[in-house]
Amino acid sequence: MAPEATGVSNAAQAPKPSRFDPSFTQHVIDTMGPKTTERNRVLLSSLIRHIHDFARETELTIDEWLAGVRYINEVGRVYSESKQTRNEAHRLSDILGLETLVDEIAHKIISDTDTDPTSSAILGPFWSPNAPFRENGGTIIQDPAPDGQVVLMHGVISDLVTGKPIPGAVFDIWQASSNGKYDFQDPQNQTPNNLRGKFRADENGKYWFYCYYPTAYSLPTDGPSYQLLQMMDRHPMRPAHIHIMVTHPEYKGCTTQLYPKDDPWLSSDTVFAVKDDLVVNFTPLEGDDKAKLELNYNVILAPKDYKGKPF
Amino acid sequence: MAPEATGVSNAAQAPKPSRFDPSFTQHVIDTMGPKTTERNRVLLSSLIRHIHDFARETELTIDEWLAGVRYINEVGRVYSESKQTRNEAHRLSDILGLETLVDEIAHKIISDTDTDPTSSAILGPFWSPNAPFRENGGTIIQDPAPDGQVVLMHGVISDLVTGKPIPGAVFDIWQASSNGKYDFQDPQNQTPNNLRGKFRADENGKYWFYCYYPTAYSLPTDGPSYQLLQMMDRHPMRPAHIHIMVTHPEYKGCTTQLYPKDDPWLSSDTVFAVKDDLVVNFTPLEGDDKAKLELNYNVILAPKDYKGKPF
Repeated sequence: MAPEATGVSNAAQAPKPSRFDPSFTQHVIDTMGPKTTERNRVLLSSLIRHIHDFARETELTIDEWLAGVRYINEVGRVYSESKQTRNEAHRLSDILGLETLVDEIAHKIISDTDTDPTSSAILGPFWSPNAPFRENGGTIIQDPAPDGQVVLMHGVISDLVTGKPIPGAVFDIWQASSNGKYDFQDPQNQTPNNLRGKFRADENGKYWFYCYYPTAYSLPTDGPSYQLLQMMDRHPMRPAHIHIMVTHPEYKGCTTQLYPKDDPWLSSDTVFAVKDDLVVNFTPLEGDDKAKLELNYNVILAPKDYKGKPF
Repeated sequence: MAPEATGVSNAAQAPKPSRFDPSFTQHVIDTMGPKTTERNRVLLSSLIRHIHDFARETELTIDEWLAGVRYINEVGRVYSESKQTRNEAHRLSDILGLETLVDEIAHKIISDTDTDPTSSAILGPFWSPNAPFRENGGTIIQDPAPDGQVVLMHGVISDLVTGKPIPGAVFDIWQASSNGKYDFQDPQNQTPNNLRGKFRADENGKYWFYCYYPTAYSLPTDGPSYQLLQMMDRHPMRPAHIHIMVTHPEYKGCTTQLYPKDDPWLSSDTVFAVKDDLVVNFTPLEGDDKAKLELNYNVILAPKDYKGKPF
């Protein structure tokens, strides 16, 4: 964690005296009135301090600042003109690592035993609250894709502490089709809720259904977030992945993503969401006329009041 | 200036060890490829470090981050839907003090004599490159406002080092009308370039023209920047001011604002642009049937290659 920007200096790392008004940042912070909530005061003081330190450290020029102003306006313009199907501000957070960081801040649990709960990964902009419940054994494939490879996905959802299954846990899955597009962003008009569904774990904590082997895809290459990737000389690829969100009222929910182990983009995911325990092995399946591949993935949830090892 | 976020810690102010992955921020920075320009690498490394430090220091929640995402989209939506007449990202910078800070970074000169050049102040979102040249002695008032008080404004533009006048310097002025609105934002449809004009200093460095006594006004109270002001329990008022931009090819240009000395908002300007030498005294004028007030304001420009005192 960074030392306080206004911290006392010392011989070992005395900051260079600034040629800029040393009281300006505190003055801006101090304009906040008494009705500011305590949390907003903490957030906005830190935000103002970091924005100002960024400008002073880099000696930000007026042209650079104006480019930033135009950039923010452009981010919102794309959102607005796409009728909110392109959330460029969300994507911008992702390529700067911010969503992965807030996910870590919110969900990091260090287990006090050898077993860890399933790692969290970012929600991303494509989750929908409207995915329908489907029966175990059913399929989320409503619009068959010519080159989609069907997978029987199944597993057990269990309790970190007791190891026991969690009947009734909800397993919400969403994924892009084989063209790398989710239902509501696909120009080919997928049926709403194609490749989305919620499944309820049975009395043994088991879930099972059919989905597609996931497809790697590029973030859109015609908007402000791609412009930034180009400035950074970075590729726009996400490794193939399946999104899941596993919840139960008595447990801490787990929103995460699963990645095939041979995907070429695992180590350079453009949104920094890959973690070791989320890299999975799809295996050949025999004797099922609906699928030729299988994915067995067990999910471990921590109880709602679980504290883990103190940091 | 803040110590480096990744600086070596020490006994006096050792930062608390973070419970978050200590290598994550550097990893995100290191994804920048070799074709990133050096300046972009500096800017984006600092930006990423500050955004991440902000999130860690405040333990930013997912809901707070999503509120930020929505906020940025909303800022751009207003810009887009207003057909670019409302630059909310620019205004947001202003109320956080960022434009005043980049203005200081760009223009701060510490004179090596007793005389200082005229202080700079922010450009703001209402300057127009299209203001017409007008003759000295003319007026920028094209649409008379019923309660506007006409002012004869005049002065000399001179050289910081020699004290000599600068013939041919361009004095660009713009101001809101008595309703607090600039031409292109006024729902009452001001004539384009009403209350805007450029004047060329004569052979004695003198400029003179008629304008209005300026009017204090509120920033718009129906957009995202006002929402932020409300969160901060701050008022949206700017003190009354006249914008000027004084340029000459052989001098550092000066963009600034002038404020009547009895304005009630001088000490709490919502965009932090007031400086002592910019607070001016309007005096009664006699014997001129066009104006009852006078403002004598001399501008001092530093030569283009002037370095001033080293910091």
